[in-house]
Amino acid sequence: MSSISTPAAPSPASATPPAAVLALTGRSDYPHFLAIPTRWMDNDVYGHVNNVVYYSYFDTVINEHLIREGGLDIHDGTVVGYCVESQCRYLAPLAFPETIDAGLRVAHLGNSSVRYEIALFREGEEVPAALGSFVHVFVARPDDHPTAIPPAIRACLERLKR
Amino acid sequence: MSSISTPAAPSPASATPPAAVLALTGRSDYPHFLAIPTRWMDNDVYGHVNNVVYYSYFDTVINEHLIREGGLDIHDGTVVGYCVESQCRYLAPLAFPETIDAGLRVAHLGNSSVRYEIALFREGEEVPAALGSFVHVFVARPDDHPTAIPPAIRACLERLKR
Amino acid sequence: MSSISTPAAPSPASATPPAAVLALTGRSDYPHFLAIPTRWMDNDVYGHVNNVVYYSYFDTVINEHLIREGGLDIHDGTVVGYCVESQCRYLAPLAFPETIDAGLRVAHLGNSSVRYEIALFREGEEVPAALGSFVHVFVARPDDHPTAIPPAIRACLERLKR
Amino acid sequence: MSSISTPAAPSPASATPPAAVLALTGRSDYPHFLAIPTRWMDNDVYGHVNNVVYYSYFDTVINEHLIREGGLDIHDGTVVGYCVESQCRYLAPLAFPETIDAGLRVAHLGNSSVRYEIALFREGEEVPAALGSFVHVFVARPDDHPTAIPPAIRACLERLKR
Repeated sequence: MSSISTPAAPSPASATPPAAVLALTGRSDYPHFLAIPTRWMDNDVYGHVNNVVYYSYFDTVINEHLIREGGLDIHDGTVVGYCVESQCRYLAPLAFPETIDAGLRVAHLGNSSVRYEIALFREGEEVPAALGSFVHVFVARPDDHPTAIPPAIRACLERLKR
Repeated sequence: MSSISTPAAPSPASATPPAAVLALTGRSDYPHFLAIPTRWMDNDVYGHVNNVVYYSYFDTVINEHLIREGGLDIHDGTVVGYCVESQCRYLAPLAFPETIDAGLRVAHLGNSSVRYEIALFREGEEVPAALGSFVHVFVARPDDHPTAIPPAIRACLERLKR
Repeated sequence: MSSISTPAAPSPASATPPAAVLALTGRSDYPHFLAIPTRWMDNDVYGHVNNVVYYSYFDTVINEHLIREGGLDIHDGTVVGYCVESQCRYLAPLAFPETIDAGLRVAHLGNSSVRYEIALFREGEEVPAALGSFVHVFVARPDDHPTAIPPAIRACLERLKR
Repeated sequence: MSSISTPAAPSPASATPPAAVLALTGRSDYPHFLAIPTRWMDNDVYGHVNNVVYYSYFDTVINEHLIREGGLDIHDGTVVGYCVESQCRYLAPLAFPETIDAGLRVAHLGNSSVRYEIALFREGEEVPAALGSFVHVFVARPDDHPTAIPPAIRACLERLKR
């Protein structure tokens, strides 16, 4: 899909960030990484990872980190993180059996919500294959009302800020 | 999304567009609908349809329509539609075993690309549970270069314009 | 499955039960049906529904029925059904955008467990495209110990016996 | 789920191998392993990896190995491996964010087909959490007729025999 930003492809080009922006988005801009091996069924009929599956990489890198580093208890915890918005720009194809490096950073940290930015890199590459964002709102489990992000999770999120 | 962490945001619902905007987005704004029954595994550990799965509903309503009404041949056709951008705002939870009504319209139709807008409605409801967008770029199968949308598919997309 | 590599096995179809057996397994052998539309991402790189996804059809037809007809409460109920065994023979390919008719019957009903048999039919076809089985063990939610199937669910399962 | 083989649970017990058999099925019985990290959406509403997803681990460990060690070309190769039968016994729950060790061996190697056996182990455990089998029939791509397994793939499969 490298051709999509060439002059011959004016429409999709506008959907992708300018080269100058991409050049500024390398691995070093993401403080946390998780290696995510692709699976057979990630590939769709066109032979690439289906667009839907990218979002599974996003919520995996996010939640794995919140559980391991922030103490999020997805079974019995007092707060739950709901996704209220997500987004992805697909810059280059991925395909099974590759392993993907998912980079994660926090772009905005509010009282009860957080906006993550995710970049997916093919192994050994510096230019991302996809750029995504994801907004979590934390709610109290009994009533689903937004609640302040608990201290341990907040500390974990602070460390992801860039 | 700035409002989601303000005191004025009592529930995740406030992460949504203003009511005035939502009021303008009802079922009648979408010329095509597909009923999509949820599946057991769509639900995640929090008991709702996982955020990832919404995107599966998006590319299902789009491709089902292109195949049936536009003659898209996903196995041997001369063009392939690649997703270069997608987005979703989650306004209300969905859960198995509900059936979802997915509304589809075309917001922008270019030479080789198209931007769809999708709304997901719970059965019997007029206010969408999610609003999404999805950009397809059509490429020629041999070389993956962007190509003009074939006439039959274009005619189908024209009918989805709103 | 020994027959699949013999000279007498000209196609994958020969990996199936003898015709005499299949002839006995038609739609009328299944007391309950659910129409399950395929999704774009069900197809894998070979252009057919991925083998994994068949099992999603199985647990969807089962749980949808237990919820609607047996009163199973998957969120707060006192019992949970765990799958302890499943199996599938793939007799013919399925592909998006087909809708699949999933037939369900109960082959064995014990005190705390039930063995289902599922057949997947392509629209308008009498010969199944796949035959599966699935064993549920019901456990009490607090301690995960096997428990007697509650009366409402049992009554629902009794009606599925063949 | 260890309780499912207790005297109080006579039915499901019969679906699981006797303890003596399980004791004979350790990591050393599988010549190839692949580490498969779980994903957020693998968990279902009951908080464990959904039964369906186990099969995704199966075809991932199989196909990853055939591609890397047997030269299987899933995009343009002359042969395709179709799954004609699969099976799983679930012995213990798995859950995100665990990483699963998937062991693979070949139980039967025919002219055009192969039967794999797979065991899933939790990290650091010697007793499998699931035991599965999976039968591939290789067909020629133009006409989908069974064909002899190509030499490079056969050599790879021979090395997996136990």
